[in-house]
Amino acid sequence: MDQLKELNDRIIRRVNVNLEEFDFDTESFVNNSLEYDKMLKFYAFYGITSKHSIYFHFRNSNIAGSYFLGQCYVGRSAIYKSDIRGDELKRKGDNIRYIKNVPLVEDERITIRDSLLYKTLVHSNSHNLESPEEFSIQNTISAHYVNIHGSDLQGCFLGPFATVDLMNLHSCIVGEFSYVQAGELFHRKIDPGTVWIRNVNFEFKYKFKNDILDNYVGVNSSHQPRGLIYDFVKEREQDYEKLFDVMNLDPIKAPANSAVSRYAVVNGKAQIGENVLVAQRAFLENAAMGDGSNAQENSYIIDSNLAGNCITAHGGKIIHSNIGLGTFVGFNSFLNGKSHAQIEVGEGCIVMPHTIIDPDALIKIPDEHLVWGFIKSEEDIKTNTIALDDLAEVRDSLSVGKMVFSGKGSVFIETFKKRINQILLANGALFHNGEKRGHAQDDQNISYNIIQPYSTGELKGLYPSIRIKP
Amino acid sequence: MDQLKELNDRIIRRVNVNLEEFDFDTESFVNNSLEYDKMLKFYAFYGITSKHSIYFHFRNSNIAGSYFLGQCYVGRSAIYKSDIRGDELKRKGDNIRYIKNVPLVEDERITIRDSLLYKTLVHSNSHNLESPEEFSIQNTISAHYVNIHGSDLQGCFLGPFATVDLMNLHSCIVGEFSYVQAGELFHRKIDPGTVWIRNVNFEFKYKFKNDILDNYVGVNSSHQPRGLIYDFVKEREQDYEKLFDVMNLDPIKAPANSAVSRYAVVNGKAQIGENVLVAQRAFLENAAMGDGSNAQENSYIIDSNLAGNCITAHGGKIIHSNIGLGTFVGFNSFLNGKSHAQIEVGEGCIVMPHTIIDPDALIKIPDEHLVWGFIKSEEDIKTNTIALDDLAEVRDSLSVGKMVFSGKGSVFIETFKKRINQILLANGALFHNGEKRGHAQDDQNISYNIIQPYSTGELKGLYPSIRIKP
Repeated sequence: MDQLKELNDRIIRRVNVNLEEFDFDTESFVNNSLEYDKMLKFYAFYGITSKHSIYFHFRNSNIAGSYFLGQCYVGRSAIYKSDIRGDELKRKGDNIRYIKNVPLVEDERITIRDSLLYKTLVHSNSHNLESPEEFSIQNTISAHYVNIHGSDLQGCFLGPFATVDLMNLHSCIVGEFSYVQAGELFHRKIDPGTVWIRNVNFEFKYKFKNDILDNYVGVNSSHQPRGLIYDFVKEREQDYEKLFDVMNLDPIKAPANSAVSRYAVVNGKAQIGENVLVAQRAFLENAAMGDGSNAQENSYIIDSNLAGNCITAHGGKIIHSNIGLGTFVGFNSFLNGKSHAQIEVGEGCIVMPHTIIDPDALIKIPDEHLVWGFIKSEEDIKTNTIALDDLAEVRDSLSVGKMVFSGKGSVFIETFKKRINQILLANGALFHNGEKRGHAQDDQNISYNIIQPYSTGELKGLYPSIRIKP
Repeated sequence: MDQLKELNDRIIRRVNVNLEEFDFDTESFVNNSLEYDKMLKFYAFYGITSKHSIYFHFRNSNIAGSYFLGQCYVGRSAIYKSDIRGDELKRKGDNIRYIKNVPLVEDERITIRDSLLYKTLVHSNSHNLESPEEFSIQNTISAHYVNIHGSDLQGCFLGPFATVDLMNLHSCIVGEFSYVQAGELFHRKIDPGTVWIRNVNFEFKYKFKNDILDNYVGVNSSHQPRGLIYDFVKEREQDYEKLFDVMNLDPIKAPANSAVSRYAVVNGKAQIGENVLVAQRAFLENAAMGDGSNAQENSYIIDSNLAGNCITAHGGKIIHSNIGLGTFVGFNSFLNGKSHAQIEVGEGCIVMPHTIIDPDALIKIPDEHLVWGFIKSEEDIKTNTIALDDLAEVRDSLSVGKMVFSGKGSVFIETFKKRINQILLANGALFHNGEKRGHAQDDQNISYNIIQPYSTGELKGLYPSIRIKP
């Protein structure tokens, strides 16, 4: 146990050095959120499939509750309740597209060194041109339900429900419920509730009002989460326990070309269509998943219907909602419908990451709209959505409500739609006649291997060194 | 799956070459006993403790249901439902005692290469003077409930319920229910039901009558087991399933200095004394385990009372019996008492390995007796036991019933008592005031790690390569 605490202390000190200029001390966050007892009781696991290239190599890390699916190397890390994927790592010869193609000279690996990640999802599909063969995370502390999606990090603190997407961060603080996809950032502090996409072609920016955000996701003085969204996930936490208590579960009924993770919660009725992916730690309750739809890690789909080819990104929450064909619901969005106040989202919509829709009466989003920010009532639709066709006309800049856009709208839409198509492809939504396999087809037959730390002695709470190769 | 079958085929061919002179073909045995479907469903596991030195390194092996506790290396092996211990491996500087001491130049390891072991217990504590640092098993096929106890093997076939103890075998066939501890054997065929101990100082030999043996352990034409003892274990097989279905079990009530494996079956009432070890795959049902007693792997203690410092060696079965203080019950012994026909074994007795006591009325073995062979009624006691004091008088040779002894009786007893003391020591029976720790104290806090094979693809049924170091 001492060595585990020592490891944590060292990471705290290292991250604190990086964040010194912000006068930010991560110690109280870590000490208040880490439950050492649970770190002994939880087991970690990794998946073995014939489809994912593996090179697991954990060192004295505590990786309680983790989930590894592709090549990996983890250093002296304490990764707690984390999901480390690696199923979209690029192979030798693949290209990272920037202005021109950058081909990989060897298979990409995830490397995590001396990091403390806490309740963190790390998803591969990185885009760092400087090290295309290595998806690296160095020494970073991240709070509850953070999404690290293809982002390289070094010495950062990520607040609860933050998402960093396809970028490189160095010595940054990202506030709670902020979504950032902004290339490369050094020594920056991102305010809570910021939704920010920036690249050479366009910029999209929205910031939640403090009083609204505070109602949904806030933090106390030691950066522990609170608020409606946190309460929502907290209330459902114990539903996951049964998944970890037993070795084998009866599989959920699904077509042969769809995958429902045995580590997903499925309550009530579930309709699983063709080419559907329900990832581990997804939560379904009376959910109809139309053909080609997916529910990614930490997403919740409750009393809702996804028409087909719908994407629920990591941490997306869809409650009492009807989602139209081909609609994308971004990271950590909170579509909080009620039985008396359903949410209807039309076809081909893009619900931006970290969008909150929380109506008191039926609310309808028309087809082919971009949706962002905070929508409480019908009239918020005017200030928080725009028809994609109207956005496509924008050539320079646009303000709608609190959202500011600059650049060419058509390029923004084209980029987004391209990414949506890539996500559908990667998840196996487009599988047909044996072609275009994706996670829905390849993640069905994962053998889960379970590892537990030393329960006594000097290394209590840590794992032995382990190397796994195909 | 193809690669798994290919691996098995290769081992069959190799072992067959070794056993060619006996006109012995292992193929029908393997094909009739291996259930490929189960090899996919079963998981393997290994233990991590702060007390056992590990160097696990499995290669494309199927090690379904296995159990590793100390240093190991497993090659391209298919080890099915096996227990590989390694908790009594010697360390650098330890001595193997023969005529003079042979010190080890490095820590001992278990090596298993290209072997197919089936339902096999491999226990360390080897005594091979030629390779003191390596406990090696090469390419061997062993049938149900075989005990390989500190024995090096190469190209052998071991029949059901056979035990090979502290020896080296090369290209041998060991018949069902035979116990052999005979130094080094080349190209030998050991008849079924042989109990044979031979060394430079003495020899002990007993052979079960064929018609009696046939009732308890027999084999059919493809060497599959049948008989009363096989039926006995078969009937209880499903009791183990619950242990493998759940991740965590409520621990059995036991003193802090005793260990009851979470992979042991405990039915009915169980009284666990101080310094008791109940190993994995042991089976207790209404059992009272007196202080310092143990129930080793595959042992069964049912409606019985072990007074204290009693040893139940691997595969020992004690039913409706009262076992006196300090009594040793050897490998695979079958003490088949009934509620109307109890078995009482006195204090300080040595029940030889592979002894069968199967009374129809109360039977009493006096204190300090050596017990062997087959005892059905009170009068068999004359021909199948001897007072240790009487045996100690023997200076040349002795025949009692079908048992033939040669050598000095006192040396035989001294050697046996020394070993019993070593077993008690190793198992933690003599733990006192923090001194003389053993398995009862060190095996309490094992973290079990679970590995599963590829469930699809070319490697279906095999594992990825895995290396685990402290």
